[in-house]
Amino acid sequence: MPARGDHEQRRQQVARIAADLVAAGGLAAATHRRIAEAAGCSTTVVSHYFTDKRDLVTATYREVGDRVAARVEAARSSQDVLVAILEALLPLDEDRTRDWRLLFTFLGLAATDAELTAEQRDRAAAARAQIETALADDKQAGRIPPDVDVPASARSLLSFVLGMGMQALFDPAEWPVERMRTALADAVAQIRARGGALPVF
Amino acid sequence: MPARGDHEQRRQQVARIAADLVAAGGLAAATHRRIAEAAGCSTTVVSHYFTDKRDLVTATYREVGDRVAARVEAARSSQDVLVAILEALLPLDEDRTRDWRLLFTFLGLAATDAELTAEQRDRAAAARAQIETALADDKQAGRIPPDVDVPASARSLLSFVLGMGMQALFDPAEWPVERMRTALADAVAQIRARGGALPVF
Repeated sequence: MPARGDHEQRRQQVARIAADLVAAGGLAAATHRRIAEAAGCSTTVVSHYFTDKRDLVTATYREVGDRVAARVEAARSSQDVLVAILEALLPLDEDRTRDWRLLFTFLGLAATDAELTAEQRDRAAAARAQIETALADDKQAGRIPPDVDVPASARSLLSFVLGMGMQALFDPAEWPVERMRTALADAVAQIRARGGALPVF
Repeated sequence: MPARGDHEQRRQQVARIAADLVAAGGLAAATHRRIAEAAGCSTTVVSHYFTDKRDLVTATYREVGDRVAARVEAARSSQDVLVAILEALLPLDEDRTRDWRLLFTFLGLAATDAELTAEQRDRAAAARAQIETALADDKQAGRIPPDVDVPASARSLLSFVLGMGMQALFDPAEWPVERMRTALADAVAQIRARGGALPVF
């Protein structure tokens, strides 16, 4: 089905362009006209891909979700998989900060939309599952104490990382990259040392 | 200036009504017409209070911010101030869940809006300051070890609470109220016991 494949590929390209416009100037900036201009196509084509703002934001969210999934996948070949996965979720560079911005734009709609809420729930559950797997592997390898509750620790670590990213997005001066990295490294070190989950200061 | 006071009071009433509409049905549901109907006034009056969606969302956010500030203030007379302040920030009941929904609706716009970002930064900094004060009081009273880094612990606790609330909003089944309460109590107990900041499992 080459025609179908072309359509999907083109849709993804346009979603990426729309996402860049949203990340730079908010939802209001991503009009069909501006997307068409940036993508070099007609507004009719854009309307064909995205019927309304909700549809557009969902497409940009999925694009972000795929990027995050790819980052997490890449993290699986790191030397310290647990830390690498958690770092993949933090706004530690421009790309990830852009994706956090788009995540929040999406969550702004999802907060009052049951269908979009389910999408975010599933993405978060997938991230939590990846953290659980990394923790279980650490336990298996003797890197964390055998009595650590893996699901509970995964929940704690994800809470910590999401809350840190959320604050960093709105107050980057308070959250320089090194502070996030150190806090995360300490949290992981603490779990490994004695089954806690957040940094000791 | 009674006229001015009346205006402000009326504006707050209308903001509250608008917030209820947004929390229940999203931004799209809070049209000027529906707000006017629910408030028993004309759409001209509503337009006078809120020029556009951004203005409306900002007003509902401020209303939420004031409610959160009042909850935190009330927490200051609790027996365990630190835990009470942190619980005031979590979506542990319908009212607070509604406010989390409105917070995220606002953050969806704020993520790509420098002025709104500054509002959220200031509100988060105020919450962090309250947590710091409670931690400092605990330290003074000998309830936490003297070598605990208060600002860093406040950042960690706020991260943990925000990340937990964020997940609970989109996945309440994974985050029953008791799970949030227990995780928070454990986090505070851990800081008090040895200067860590998250639950040990």
